[in-house]
Amino acid sequence: MRYAVSCVLNYDVQGNAPFVFNIEAQNTEHQKVLDETLTISPQLAIERFDMPESGNRYFRLRAGPGPLKVEYRATVELTPATFDPEAVQEVEPGRLPLEALTHLYPSRYIESDLLQQFAKREFGHLKPGYQRVAAIANWICDNIDYVRGSSDESTSARDTLIQRQGVCRDFAHLGIAFCRGLGIPARFVSAYAWRLQPPDFHAVFEAWLEGPEGGAWFMFDPTRLADSDGLVRMGVGRDAAEVAFCSPYGEADCGSPKVRIEALDRDANTTKPTTRAVTLAAA
Amino acid sequence: MRYAVSCVLNYDVQGNAPFVFNIEAQNTEHQKVLDETLTISPQLAIERFDMPESGNRYFRLRAGPGPLKVEYRATVELTPATFDPEAVQEVEPGRLPLEALTHLYPSRYIESDLLQQFAKREFGHLKPGYQRVAAIANWICDNIDYVRGSSDESTSARDTLIQRQGVCRDFAHLGIAFCRGLGIPARFVSAYAWRLQPPDFHAVFEAWLEGPEGGAWFMFDPTRLADSDGLVRMGVGRDAAEVAFCSPYGEADCGSPKVRIEALDRDANTTKPTTRAVTLAAA
Amino acid sequence: MRYAVSCVLNYDVQGNAPFVFNIEAQNTEHQKVLDETLTISPQLAIERFDMPESGNRYFRLRAGPGPLKVEYRATVELTPATFDPEAVQEVEPGRLPLEALTHLYPSRYIESDLLQQFAKREFGHLKPGYQRVAAIANWICDNIDYVRGSSDESTSARDTLIQRQGVCRDFAHLGIAFCRGLGIPARFVSAYAWRLQPPDFHAVFEAWLEGPEGGAWFMFDPTRLADSDGLVRMGVGRDAAEVAFCSPYGEADCGSPKVRIEALDRDANTTKPTTRAVTLAAA
Amino acid sequence: MRYAVSCVLNYDVQGNAPFVFNIEAQNTEHQKVLDETLTISPQLAIERFDMPESGNRYFRLRAGPGPLKVEYRATVELTPATFDPEAVQEVEPGRLPLEALTHLYPSRYIESDLLQQFAKREFGHLKPGYQRVAAIANWICDNIDYVRGSSDESTSARDTLIQRQGVCRDFAHLGIAFCRGLGIPARFVSAYAWRLQPPDFHAVFEAWLEGPEGGAWFMFDPTRLADSDGLVRMGVGRDAAEVAFCSPYGEADCGSPKVRIEALDRDANTTKPTTRAVTLAAA
Repeated sequence: MRYAVSCVLNYDVQGNAPFVFNIEAQNTEHQKVLDETLTISPQLAIERFDMPESGNRYFRLRAGPGPLKVEYRATVELTPATFDPEAVQEVEPGRLPLEALTHLYPSRYIESDLLQQFAKREFGHLKPGYQRVAAIANWICDNIDYVRGSSDESTSARDTLIQRQGVCRDFAHLGIAFCRGLGIPARFVSAYAWRLQPPDFHAVFEAWLEGPEGGAWFMFDPTRLADSDGLVRMGVGRDAAEVAFCSPYGEADCGSPKVRIEALDRDANTTKPTTRAVTLAAA
Repeated sequence: MRYAVSCVLNYDVQGNAPFVFNIEAQNTEHQKVLDETLTISPQLAIERFDMPESGNRYFRLRAGPGPLKVEYRATVELTPATFDPEAVQEVEPGRLPLEALTHLYPSRYIESDLLQQFAKREFGHLKPGYQRVAAIANWICDNIDYVRGSSDESTSARDTLIQRQGVCRDFAHLGIAFCRGLGIPARFVSAYAWRLQPPDFHAVFEAWLEGPEGGAWFMFDPTRLADSDGLVRMGVGRDAAEVAFCSPYGEADCGSPKVRIEALDRDANTTKPTTRAVTLAAA
Repeated sequence: MRYAVSCVLNYDVQGNAPFVFNIEAQNTEHQKVLDETLTISPQLAIERFDMPESGNRYFRLRAGPGPLKVEYRATVELTPATFDPEAVQEVEPGRLPLEALTHLYPSRYIESDLLQQFAKREFGHLKPGYQRVAAIANWICDNIDYVRGSSDESTSARDTLIQRQGVCRDFAHLGIAFCRGLGIPARFVSAYAWRLQPPDFHAVFEAWLEGPEGGAWFMFDPTRLADSDGLVRMGVGRDAAEVAFCSPYGEADCGSPKVRIEALDRDANTTKPTTRAVTLAAA
Repeated sequence: MRYAVSCVLNYDVQGNAPFVFNIEAQNTEHQKVLDETLTISPQLAIERFDMPESGNRYFRLRAGPGPLKVEYRATVELTPATFDPEAVQEVEPGRLPLEALTHLYPSRYIESDLLQQFAKREFGHLKPGYQRVAAIANWICDNIDYVRGSSDESTSARDTLIQRQGVCRDFAHLGIAFCRGLGIPARFVSAYAWRLQPPDFHAVFEAWLEGPEGGAWFMFDPTRLADSDGLVRMGVGRDAAEVAFCSPYGEADCGSPKVRIEALDRDANTTKPTTRAVTLAAA
């Protein structure tokens, strides 16, 4: 399935300010960028950095005073693997790839050490595997209210659990916290999300599990607000602290990002949206 | 029903240190002290202060270096009011006695402002009244594990909810937090607790509700560890910060308090303990 | 010195909502209300409650849908005691009045238990007495920035210390935290504040100290934004959780309070403002 | 300068448990492992993983029930670069290597977002460069007390700043927090530390700065407890969550690690220890 994704970002920059962006679609086994264009006005030199351990594609530019417009357009093909949820297992720590251990550690917005007891109490009795992580995503969807404006950039998983409300970022943090608390590596994902209304950047999470073909990151969306088959990944990381679509290092007024995603190969008007909390896609 | 209560407290004091104690049974409509003795070794002068708004009975002494032993023994009669739970209502804020409003505010260990959303999400749909507070106590009993040593003196209701474990003090804090979050005045109670095993000082909470005979503080014990008809109150307050059985203002080594309570009017061996989460007693 | 104080509060009430107000000037030894009027539009019955332990004057009304206007005007005489700061001492716990011990405990916005070590490290070496509390107020004035909008209703002393900014409420909380951490009873005070610009309700703190004439609450204003001789007290309490000028129990839109205070006995234009961090007034 | 380092770790394992260790010395430009031996009793297969982005050397083993002993011995050569502190600059974000940006983000134990204002208020006026980071390390040494047992594994930089005490781990976290708050990339380092008394694993921090020969990680030890020229690095990471010398995934009783480090090329008894808060060594 092919998707056209785009975003347009507008800034009004005071003085000189470097900006780092992470808005470009990743290239992975199940997500191919077929074509893409990046347009910056005024024209500015950019430096690129693809982070080896995450596949995140960063670029940096140095803007001068005045307006700055960054526009990214791409056609991306998603080929989600299909699998039998019952056949997807958790991996015990002695067999996890050592590079995945990083995603067991607590991070700024995910105090999984403090939430471990909660996770065990609520999900510890469930049969380990894909369905347990799906149960976590479902629990969040059922128990946390999606309320725009209810959280801010310092809100952590602990806060969200207490306040019982948040946005996609907070839902993802809480899902990751529960997974890590149970010994399941999990990470934060920013994405273009098909059928998300209103259109915006989205955040979901991935857990490291093992299917018949080996270990992979399986995606879960506890908000159920987007179509789980139409998530185009931009950034992955420990938590939102590592995955910002834009980091300005200087003063700038930001307009709202204009984000779009369109399915090219199916009739978006007639197909009933899928709203599973989890996806069939794995990296 | 009459109870014999006692506690023996031993200290080894370095230097000169004032101590404030709150170990004596309160005198209220439903709790009468029939006789009592307080023995201090070495013999020391004490100052007394009965706090008008709480009925707490404090005394202070100034100990010198060496051993200090404080011993309190009393016979207390409890005459719990009986009532029909269905007939006990919550009181809306416009009709609450103004002195009870204090017990709607958040306090050190009870961030009821932060837990309000949680309280509403979990208990907001329940029919207001005694049964709703009982549901809160039951929820805590079902969802929080009683684990000795799992909390310390800085643990608050928010921590307890996240960690899913605590001791009687923490259970009471969480119950109060949920009540205040729903607009129900609630306060912390320290008590001698019949059938608590092992014997120790206990902590429960009270909510201000209104029965057919008017407003009163109704007691709830979310631990279900003691007999709800045999709780002899020592101190009430906003939270544990205000209700310490002993506050030493100087260095002293404390032995474990030896606490006892015995039912004088019934056969403790044959009567089946009641383990309701709530009591039939009101002040 | 006489002051004319007034406030006008406007609300737009949805549905029926009880309101509790604490806007009237206290009557104490050093603060006498000479005359006062309270006007409520529409005319509504009020219930009054003067809290014995604080002297706070509360009244409650029950508003129906539509506009509500509450207007208070008073003439108040302040007769601050003069004293020699060097002669004002801290009181060791063994000699504190037992009712003051309450103000040693931590409270919702004042984690004095957690800040005790900080207080000792920063102020523990100073000579105990009035001047040490003045040093605390000065430290706050020097180290915390007064920034409108930098805090919200869940901000506590710990947050303020970390963020190094706040408003009068936060400055007072931090001052109280340091005092309690050093064993000095301290409490929160809301007041009409002469020469505060722009005019608004103000918050300061008081510490229990002992002058030649005995123990008293001494006032300190770590913001230095008002004239320390012209503070007319409305409410005192453990912290801001207990001292709100208005608590609505229902939905209502609030306009900004219009607060005024005028010195009747001196020429406000020619007298140089005093901006000591502490006052010469004691209750 | 050559150092002999060693550690002996003893466990009593219940059941089967995987362990991940990070106790081996790194190989970097300024730190060469000349020889090393790793002995495990009972003999067990190990898996190795050298993390590319950090140079950390991990190994994993799967222990069965009973005693487990892990022993590491190495000879390491340190060739610290010498430099003129005045010539070492901070690097503005537009010129930082993009892989270093990760170390500007807040992490579990380092809420640099919340401490940014504190950092700016305390160190913002200082001239940027090596000397500013040295001033941070000195401030911590002067303002935080090193108190064994004063913190635990959930203690964060915010807690340490409030409590004014901690151990080497906490000192490093706070130093990193201040650096990140000022826009200086900083990371956590675990090390064998010459002259640390009593001998133990040590924790320090590194900041990314730029000398005449280019960008490098410069080491700072705010505890001043070890000889800054004799730090043999084991692990680097965002914070202590990522840098554990041992992570057991199962139940095991741990004895105290026996850690040793000896200078082979100088007379430890006659040379006066250097106790600068910062090192002349860069990676």
